[in-house]
Amino acid sequence: MGLVAVLDEARDPAAKLTPLVELVAADMQRVNRIIIDKAGSNVDLIPELARHLIDSGGKRLRPMLTLAAAKMCGYAGEGHIQLASSVEFMHTATLLHDDVVDESALRRGKPTARLVWGNQASVLVGDFLLGQAFKMMVDVGSLKALRILANAAAVIAEGEVMQLSAAKNTATTEDEYLAVIDAKTAALFSAASEVGAAIAERPAAEQNGLKSYGRNLGLAFQLVDDALDYSGEQARLGKSVGDDFREGKITLPVVLAYRRGSEDDRKFWKRTLEEGDIKDGDLERAIGLMQKHGAIADTIGRARHYGKIARDALEIFRDSRHKTALMDVVEFCIGRAY
Amino acid sequence: MGLVAVLDEARDPAAKLTPLVELVAADMQRVNRIIIDKAGSNVDLIPELARHLIDSGGKRLRPMLTLAAAKMCGYAGEGHIQLASSVEFMHTATLLHDDVVDESALRRGKPTARLVWGNQASVLVGDFLLGQAFKMMVDVGSLKALRILANAAAVIAEGEVMQLSAAKNTATTEDEYLAVIDAKTAALFSAASEVGAAIAERPAAEQNGLKSYGRNLGLAFQLVDDALDYSGEQARLGKSVGDDFREGKITLPVVLAYRRGSEDDRKFWKRTLEEGDIKDGDLERAIGLMQKHGAIADTIGRARHYGKIARDALEIFRDSRHKTALMDVVEFCIGRAY
Repeated sequence: MGLVAVLDEARDPAAKLTPLVELVAADMQRVNRIIIDKAGSNVDLIPELARHLIDSGGKRLRPMLTLAAAKMCGYAGEGHIQLASSVEFMHTATLLHDDVVDESALRRGKPTARLVWGNQASVLVGDFLLGQAFKMMVDVGSLKALRILANAAAVIAEGEVMQLSAAKNTATTEDEYLAVIDAKTAALFSAASEVGAAIAERPAAEQNGLKSYGRNLGLAFQLVDDALDYSGEQARLGKSVGDDFREGKITLPVVLAYRRGSEDDRKFWKRTLEEGDIKDGDLERAIGLMQKHGAIADTIGRARHYGKIARDALEIFRDSRHKTALMDVVEFCIGRAY
Repeated sequence: MGLVAVLDEARDPAAKLTPLVELVAADMQRVNRIIIDKAGSNVDLIPELARHLIDSGGKRLRPMLTLAAAKMCGYAGEGHIQLASSVEFMHTATLLHDDVVDESALRRGKPTARLVWGNQASVLVGDFLLGQAFKMMVDVGSLKALRILANAAAVIAEGEVMQLSAAKNTATTEDEYLAVIDAKTAALFSAASEVGAAIAERPAAEQNGLKSYGRNLGLAFQLVDDALDYSGEQARLGKSVGDDFREGKITLPVVLAYRRGSEDDRKFWKRTLEEGDIKDGDLERAIGLMQKHGAIADTIGRARHYGKIARDALEIFRDSRHKTALMDVVEFCIGRAY
């Protein structure tokens, strides 16, 4: 149903990221140089491990948000470069710790750092990158920006603990799921966008506009990510399908399929996700149940809802190429689902 | 030899901490309230796990340094309370991650958080406390203090990675060992002391004096700690003797005993610490070799050297009760060895 209709909306989702990528290309080159420089250390293990993640082909969406938001707000200084680099380091540190916590084997189709260098090094290099992120923020000298990013750091960690506590509970509600992704994903998207207005010393209405834009974009992004984990599209993106299933993660497609399912279905979800008893064919059955109950399509539907809020949050800004590019990012995030 | 002479110097080392404890008692009550408050979260696991460490009877030496340093510098504001709380949170976060990295079972005679709640929760709650620490620092609003503490956070993590890379190498030099403890321990003592001068807006000479005091105190503290791990005094402090030995940690007593030992001795150190092949009686043999080569006494001798530098660094300040109390802390740290 919805799927075909939406396919018309976004035939080439990647193209929707192009305006942003092009607008911030020169600044991103400077960000990338800083990232390589600040991941350096006399302790060989640090740059080795950091480069593994840095070179692994992430989109660097979060720092691009900071750069574009600052420019949209008319910022003419240099601080946005360091703040954007800090945002990417915070993200990288989170990924390192996440992979340890989730005991993940692959990220973006490559072995995770913890598999190559061990959990110990991953924890400590994550701490190092977080320390470097804070140093860079402090160098920029904006207490407003510092407050926003320090708050995000605490909220992200809180979200991860929440996810750990909620793990393997198939009776998780959509609200509980949302609280987790609000903290673990949306908080950094939100902070990355908001600091752009903060260093530009824009009024509260604009700062809050970007904060809301980033938050809702982050929610949409994570919802689509969680839908993709049960979709064939994943393979195309170099990710394996069913990672969340094997790790027993309770994401929205599961929440919906569990609630809408029969007693037998619920037994299946409990056996596989709560007890971790996964047999051949179980992933296919899980995907089948999700399709039957429209759980994937509705997860993407929810993402479109937050995407609309993100766009409206941005409307108060006067038109500019940066504004258009940020609007297009919403389409990109949701378009990835198709 | 040296041991008897020094016993006369410091008959009751704990008494040397009393002046500091009494001087900052009122401020420490406020710090303790903030610590409990900021370790709070709607996610139950966070306060539970954090309280486990917070209530575990640490001396809170580091925040006391911040409070006393600020007062010695004539600081009349409120920021030292939040900075001291941040320092303790940074320390607590490091302990949580350390225990995961070292796979430790006991800390201060109690099961470690990782044994009770698992490695995953320990990593994430550590991240949360670090985030809270940064939030508190930002609230104080001193960019100088922020720069000092953010730098310490990166250096500490770098030191931990260095320790991980150097682990199980019996040929480690004293310089390499010093570089590790300089980063993983002395950096926080140094930052904790230096921020006292920074928020009081004292001239660079005083800020550097406190920075040097803290650094050298931290070196002395860690040297004594590493000596105590091979001494019967540990049992009295509720710690077990030989933890470092069992974990294969290359501390100065090992570095000295290895270098001063015979080829046979070196085979012993390689078997036990590098290969982790530890039999009944090996710890006793290790302690015997250290005693034979004066490795424990000389480790404490090195601590006294750094203790003297710490005292001299403080001399430029005019006399005050706070200065005397900080001088006495040096005696306390070294006196613990007897």
